[in-house]
Amino acid sequence: MKISELKRILKKKNLDFALFYSLGMEPNPNMVYFAQYYGVGALIVPKKQPHFLVVPKMEYERAKSSLVKKVYSMDKKRFFESINLTLKKDKLKMKNIGIDKSAFTLLAYKGFKKCFKSSKTKDLAFDCMRLREIKTKEEIKTIKKAFNYGNKIIKKAIKNFKSFRTESEAAAFLEYEAKKLGLGMSFPPIVASGKNACMPHHMPKNTKLQKGFCVIDFGIKHKGYCTDITRTIYIGKPTKQEKDIYNFLLKIQKNIINNIKLDDNCGKIYENCVKALKNYSRYFTHGLGHGVGVEIHELPNLALNSKGKIRESIVFTIEPGIYIPKKLGIRIEDSILMGKKPIILTNAPKDLLIV
Amino acid sequence: MKISELKRILKKKNLDFALFYSLGMEPNPNMVYFAQYYGVGALIVPKKQPHFLVVPKMEYERAKSSLVKKVYSMDKKRFFESINLTLKKDKLKMKNIGIDKSAFTLLAYKGFKKCFKSSKTKDLAFDCMRLREIKTKEEIKTIKKAFNYGNKIIKKAIKNFKSFRTESEAAAFLEYEAKKLGLGMSFPPIVASGKNACMPHHMPKNTKLQKGFCVIDFGIKHKGYCTDITRTIYIGKPTKQEKDIYNFLLKIQKNIINNIKLDDNCGKIYENCVKALKNYSRYFTHGLGHGVGVEIHELPNLALNSKGKIRESIVFTIEPGIYIPKKLGIRIEDSILMGKKPIILTNAPKDLLIV
Repeated sequence: MKISELKRILKKKNLDFALFYSLGMEPNPNMVYFAQYYGVGALIVPKKQPHFLVVPKMEYERAKSSLVKKVYSMDKKRFFESINLTLKKDKLKMKNIGIDKSAFTLLAYKGFKKCFKSSKTKDLAFDCMRLREIKTKEEIKTIKKAFNYGNKIIKKAIKNFKSFRTESEAAAFLEYEAKKLGLGMSFPPIVASGKNACMPHHMPKNTKLQKGFCVIDFGIKHKGYCTDITRTIYIGKPTKQEKDIYNFLLKIQKNIINNIKLDDNCGKIYENCVKALKNYSRYFTHGLGHGVGVEIHELPNLALNSKGKIRESIVFTIEPGIYIPKKLGIRIEDSILMGKKPIILTNAPKDLLIV
Repeated sequence: MKISELKRILKKKNLDFALFYSLGMEPNPNMVYFAQYYGVGALIVPKKQPHFLVVPKMEYERAKSSLVKKVYSMDKKRFFESINLTLKKDKLKMKNIGIDKSAFTLLAYKGFKKCFKSSKTKDLAFDCMRLREIKTKEEIKTIKKAFNYGNKIIKKAIKNFKSFRTESEAAAFLEYEAKKLGLGMSFPPIVASGKNACMPHHMPKNTKLQKGFCVIDFGIKHKGYCTDITRTIYIGKPTKQEKDIYNFLLKIQKNIINNIKLDDNCGKIYENCVKALKNYSRYFTHGLGHGVGVEIHELPNLALNSKGKIRESIVFTIEPGIYIPKKLGIRIEDSILMGKKPIILTNAPKDLLIV
């Protein structure tokens, strides 16, 4: 996506090329975004010439089967040394290089500098994040398809919820349904029952599901693109007070979504949520939402002091929560595509489901 | 694990404390190793005082339920600013700070330096990797339990293999069996059939399993510790030549393992494998093995020019492979615990299984 926009930035910043790399099992999000390549190696995007991959021998066949037309295999020299040699053979100027400092470690940079002694680097982290924030028509198509998958799976899991004995079983079901369709995971599913629900990032446990609110936070990846949804159901019989808290939060969540308009300030939307939560705001311990794309957390950031804006063609979450320590947790999260108005991409029912 | 050894290193290197951090969904391996904490935040290990966590408000309850006794909650200031304030309140000297440069991004370092202006940093990446290389008795107990889980699951998957229609279904089964027991994944399982098997890191596809060799590479995580195994089975009816290649590779793999002795040089073991592969060595496109621990790739590295040694209480893989482009792929991988002699931790059968 948007290789030409990246090239425009390179020209503007007077950079000879952009270099992105991955050394491990985790794909580099910019390599996924610009080249749909998920493996180890480096993606080089020159200012003028076509972009290409430089990959270890073991990744060569895989890289050849990606969208990138030009692939070089590394010889057995060190990583950045191999890249440097390839660039020299290609006679690429390498005076000024753009890198993503949010995905470049200090150790890798040391190795890089040894081989690119006289090169200067400039950070492209925010440029890439800004490019990725606004989705293209093609991306929106892929994202909608991703949410179709994600929606079906979470609805199926909630329908089957009575058959799960443990948080782990529920989480395993969500992953299984995704994986057998060839989908990836945005993050390991969260299933947090009883007191565990007060931990927003609880890891599912292989113990009996506890009575009370149960938070289910789940997202898949389709062609690299993430989905994100949270539903909170109730196991057992909720008290009137519990139902009231849930409905109080639900009303706030719906109101926020309904009121979102183009050019709204993201920090302001967060503040409005805090205000609406009244006394419960001290139990709201995280941001209100975040952009979603090839990474699960992208721009904009809907949190305190965020200067981001609601712009057309962004995809983001609205996920207020109430977490009372050692007691309960509730989170209701939808993902939104911003058109002229907000379009909700997640469609699992939100009324309190009691199982 | 080994907090006291880390403190000894801090004293030796004249460091006031070590700082490890995680900002995203991926746990920091050193935070898992030293503190069994999987979330966002920072782990501070002072030279003398007890270690502690500084975590965002949303992670506070989760951090409190980890093994670390002292947990501070961040106020709403920026990440490193919050940490800096906490350290000041704790009156911790911060002249010399140890960091892991292999897990510290350039962007994070910029934020860090703003708040720790007069501090000097030293790299602890290799110190931590060396500490993690030699496993303690307690770790070995956990690791053996992890392999018990991993072994059962891959054997069950291979037994059920006929019921899978696609690579994705086979991979989903492996994950499901792991996840419902509350286990994590070392990496997304690889199931690569037919021509796909020539890509060592192929991502399972939602298309019909192809005839020919099928590589299954799979590992779980138990209490943070990874397992790793690869088996190659055959779908359909292998030719005599195919059987011969498989048995040729299997014999080499077994020989390598049987001949491993304490103090062996890791580069030399790799070279011996290359020699044994004869004409097939050009189709062996990756290293022979790697250490396994809280990360799937740790020390030692059994590859060309590796200066590592086989030491007591290390855990590592032996995984020779033959990948003929557009044709076939075979990999046979076991994980080994080094005692006085090698102890094989993986126990799924290795004779060519035809399904």
